[in-house]
Amino acid sequence: MTTFKFTLAYDGTGFIGWQRQATGRSVQALVEEALARLEGAPVTVIGASRTDAGVHALGQVASATLTRDPDASVLRRALNAMLPPDLRVLAVEPALPDFHARSAARAKTYRYRVIVGEFVSPFERRIAWHVPGPLDIPEMQRAAQRFEGRHDFAAFQSAGGKVTTTVRTVAMSRLKAATGPEGYQEIIYEITGNGFLRHMVRAIVGTLVDVGAGRLNAGAIDGIFESRRRQDAGPTAPAHGLFLVAVTYRATCDVTATTGKI
Amino acid sequence: MTTFKFTLAYDGTGFIGWQRQATGRSVQALVEEALARLEGAPVTVIGASRTDAGVHALGQVASATLTRDPDASVLRRALNAMLPPDLRVLAVEPALPDFHARSAARAKTYRYRVIVGEFVSPFERRIAWHVPGPLDIPEMQRAAQRFEGRHDFAAFQSAGGKVTTTVRTVAMSRLKAATGPEGYQEIIYEITGNGFLRHMVRAIVGTLVDVGAGRLNAGAIDGIFESRRRQDAGPTAPAHGLFLVAVTYRATCDVTATTGKI
Repeated sequence: MTTFKFTLAYDGTGFIGWQRQATGRSVQALVEEALARLEGAPVTVIGASRTDAGVHALGQVASATLTRDPDASVLRRALNAMLPPDLRVLAVEPALPDFHARSAARAKTYRYRVIVGEFVSPFERRIAWHVPGPLDIPEMQRAAQRFEGRHDFAAFQSAGGKVTTTVRTVAMSRLKAATGPEGYQEIIYEITGNGFLRHMVRAIVGTLVDVGAGRLNAGAIDGIFESRRRQDAGPTAPAHGLFLVAVTYRATCDVTATTGKI
Repeated sequence: MTTFKFTLAYDGTGFIGWQRQATGRSVQALVEEALARLEGAPVTVIGASRTDAGVHALGQVASATLTRDPDASVLRRALNAMLPPDLRVLAVEPALPDFHARSAARAKTYRYRVIVGEFVSPFERRIAWHVPGPLDIPEMQRAAQRFEGRHDFAAFQSAGGKVTTTVRTVAMSRLKAATGPEGYQEIIYEITGNGFLRHMVRAIVGTLVDVGAGRLNAGAIDGIFESRRRQDAGPTAPAHGLFLVAVTYRATCDVTATTGKI
């Protein structure tokens, strides 16, 4: 029995999300089916983040335990040969036997891309939210900072989440903008935290765009935390601008890292 | 009657190419249909380059004459509202009455992207050719230079082209490479010329990859020009790595530029 840590990238456009459901093309089902073909028996794959339909990943992390002990690079090549081109296995590493990609995750980083302008390039249409603008970038940057720290994010959660507490700690919440010709702007928002509520990043981005458009000001964020009312925050930004960038773990999850300590 | 110059970008994935055909989704047909809706009558649109199925454009140029005289920016907005998101009108400008996007074109620049590595990112799969490699970049750069100047490109032409001469002048032929982690490389090849034969850029790129893989050396290019035999050159690289980047004209095709001279 060997437990592996998988790092995955996927274009969320063609997926119903990470999680296997009764019908539809999920990332989890494709990875489980590929591993089952190698294993000759069903395999359960745990994902660090249950990304929603349409959400992309540059560094999703998953774990699974196999009865055999294939070489990690052979396993990576075999999986990429079986999986479709919108889902790639970037890395495979042996992990400790009890490594669980979701419960062991210490932090996750998400990125959200917004394109401001009259139109969006055909090559951006699936990987960025198009907002006509104009947006007040400095005010959005002030608002982004307010999300850092420990807060009750109840107002930034969609119905349907099953959580006991809505308090989360955000280690980093930062917005950058690059300006191109004719008012075209690319906005990159990044957020790192120890846990995220349902649609939390997208609700934050919807709120930041409301701030940029002048419908809210940065100073209003604290009051929205206090109110805990979803309707006080901005709308949920669309899924296709969101990327799961990275998941971080204690170094001890990896056999290699642990070996050094023994 | 006003003649307009249109600058277009499209993701070639969903198109049978620029040119209208009996069936299939062509860029020309979509632009002609959108203009016909505004005009209330059929409109003919001329494209500078008849890009093939799957080939992308960042700066295709087209011309059309309308009986009305709409404001250029209103026309751009109206077209973008009617056209699908994989086809965008970047710019609309009034042109001289006899402006013809194809015959007036002085030079065209194409870009071809190659990704070298064990796998290609899901976000690159439609916009780059994946080659496992390794490739000898300096040797490919030496080979790329050989294409500059006036040559008989008969060996770099697919059957089916209707041309009286296969001699063309290439003003620029240059290859750059950026190296990332684990042997991953992004190769950008750019070529500018006054005219291109059928599949010429893709045949050149297929030949450059043969050089990079050691199947040909840079010194062999001159012999391939002389032989004029298609089979002596490399294979035709796939369409989805190719972009029409820009088309250049004499300044006098624009009414605005001309006005300054009168």
